[in-house]
Amino acid sequence: MTLTLISIGLTSHKDLSLRAIEAANQADTVYAETYTMKLDTTPQQLGETIGRSVHPLTRGPMEEDAENLLREAETGDVAILVGGDALTATTHISLVIDAAKRGIPVKVVHGSSIITAVAETGLSLYKFGRTVTVPLPEKGPVTTVIRTLRDNLEQGLHTLILLDLDEPERRYLTINQAITRLEKTGEFNMDTLLVAAARLGSENQVIRADTAENLKAQDFGDAPHAIVAPGRLHFMEEEALKALAGCPPELLTGRKVQGEVDRLIEKYSVGCRRVLRELKTNPPPKTINKAQVDELLDHINRYLDDAEYYRGENDPVALTSVAYAEGVLDALKLLGLVEFEW
Amino acid sequence: MTLTLISIGLTSHKDLSLRAIEAANQADTVYAETYTMKLDTTPQQLGETIGRSVHPLTRGPMEEDAENLLREAETGDVAILVGGDALTATTHISLVIDAAKRGIPVKVVHGSSIITAVAETGLSLYKFGRTVTVPLPEKGPVTTVIRTLRDNLEQGLHTLILLDLDEPERRYLTINQAITRLEKTGEFNMDTLLVAAARLGSENQVIRADTAENLKAQDFGDAPHAIVAPGRLHFMEEEALKALAGCPPELLTGRKVQGEVDRLIEKYSVGCRRVLRELKTNPPPKTINKAQVDELLDHINRYLDDAEYYRGENDPVALTSVAYAEGVLDALKLLGLVEFEW
Repeated sequence: MTLTLISIGLTSHKDLSLRAIEAANQADTVYAETYTMKLDTTPQQLGETIGRSVHPLTRGPMEEDAENLLREAETGDVAILVGGDALTATTHISLVIDAAKRGIPVKVVHGSSIITAVAETGLSLYKFGRTVTVPLPEKGPVTTVIRTLRDNLEQGLHTLILLDLDEPERRYLTINQAITRLEKTGEFNMDTLLVAAARLGSENQVIRADTAENLKAQDFGDAPHAIVAPGRLHFMEEEALKALAGCPPELLTGRKVQGEVDRLIEKYSVGCRRVLRELKTNPPPKTINKAQVDELLDHINRYLDDAEYYRGENDPVALTSVAYAEGVLDALKLLGLVEFEW
Repeated sequence: MTLTLISIGLTSHKDLSLRAIEAANQADTVYAETYTMKLDTTPQQLGETIGRSVHPLTRGPMEEDAENLLREAETGDVAILVGGDALTATTHISLVIDAAKRGIPVKVVHGSSIITAVAETGLSLYKFGRTVTVPLPEKGPVTTVIRTLRDNLEQGLHTLILLDLDEPERRYLTINQAITRLEKTGEFNMDTLLVAAARLGSENQVIRADTAENLKAQDFGDAPHAIVAPGRLHFMEEEALKALAGCPPELLTGRKVQGEVDRLIEKYSVGCRRVLRELKTNPPPKTINKAQVDELLDHINRYLDDAEYYRGENDPVALTSVAYAEGVLDALKLLGLVEFEW
């Protein structure tokens, strides 16, 4: 009894490793799950390559087959061929956990994946942040994509943007459609530098860096497509984008990737400095009455309410609200209007 | 004339794909670069697997061989076998850029990599942040590791921590040594949940989740070793860590991963609320003299200086300084002590 997940790799049966073929030949039964990604192969071709028959999992989402597969793996050796590297898909991790819980020994044979093949864009794999998927229109909005881009840029990190698909229906989101979806939110700057990557790892892959606006107008051919949004670029990455992805050099000149925290610091700092230069001190001494103090205390409360409303979202703006409130409190204290201890 | 980088994959010649073997057989000359990572194979074994002779690049760092390889690729078809997925190493990207600049067509055949194999820990690949390497002691400090961990946790992201090696000298940093290096900084909490991963992708891989303190005491055997520092965990990831990595359940109970921004918001917010409850208003009306106003303006200047000193480092503490300064300024304005416009 064993469950073996065997990675097919990036594009077709040609990406199977010798270890993968050996593992498939040791199993009692071999299945192929070809619904998670678009592959340039079929269960028949996989079978011919391995040298034995491969049964397609025809029910679509593997979840529906999971119970049957696990039951079979309790008495025999079951192998499942899956596209890319096997555990990239959540559905496969879920199957592995269920098997482990039932005491079924699990083995994984690894293969090539878009997650690392994306280094062909010239961007360093070590500098990627969270990966995100643009869903098909009927499956939901792109708010998570916008937010992930923002969060990764906050740290200067690159974002791999995968594009959703409905394999049984042969529907694949294209680079053009994905960019259009982002544009329609009104929260995505079409001057953003993106890298379009079509059919990575195949003989006819295309990689092109340009603005979102320019890429939207191009036809990248057959699926699968993916997009990368570069973060802060090292000099060598800039060289690579030009040499490997045809990036127009002017898009890299003076390009600035700034996190929200740094943007706010710069904005407030410039504002405060200007105010300090321009402010006029009213003729002292000046008498303050109770109403003025109470009004400031109300003011503080409103800022704290704001900050607390956004707490847990790691929102730099909420942080400025609460630090601002602290500044007002300290001013009251230092002027001798109120007394407290931090 | 072509330069083809062929990925060997995660551990040995058995991880070569059919595409890799085919590409190697199409080349005029095949080299093997086995200095970037620890592989369980030799150029001889690679040659036997492919069915032709494979020349080891013996000069160590590939950089030194680069010029010769490029010159050879200008007139013939050169293939280089490299461990893992080919473009994971910066040195290989650099070779590819140089080839592209000289007009030499470049091809990359992808293979399995620790970057995706690490999903065997049960952690979602989509939620990893920047990858970092713990250097061998003589190669530098671990400050970048500490900082990367902090930045990734800020976003709730997992961190893949690779361990440095000196392949010609057969020296490989172990999990124990790496944790000890982190401990010695005094900036790393030894109660941190980590996942130790030894020999991922091989027949005798070991994956174990525990505190840094407990993992430090264990022997994980032969290299290569790697470590993952989990960020915020989804319920399914917690299940996976228990089922696949033997994570003690009590380490997951009440575990809280909070970014610095949220931590500061909570801290200041709690502080301000307490102060608002406890503060006493001094008997108004109260007369303010010029010295008091000047002192507050100095106070503001010091906070702005602080903020600007740390600008560009995306430091939330610097953001609080500048927002605090704004609060003090507004207090002065709202009390009628100074006049300015934002």
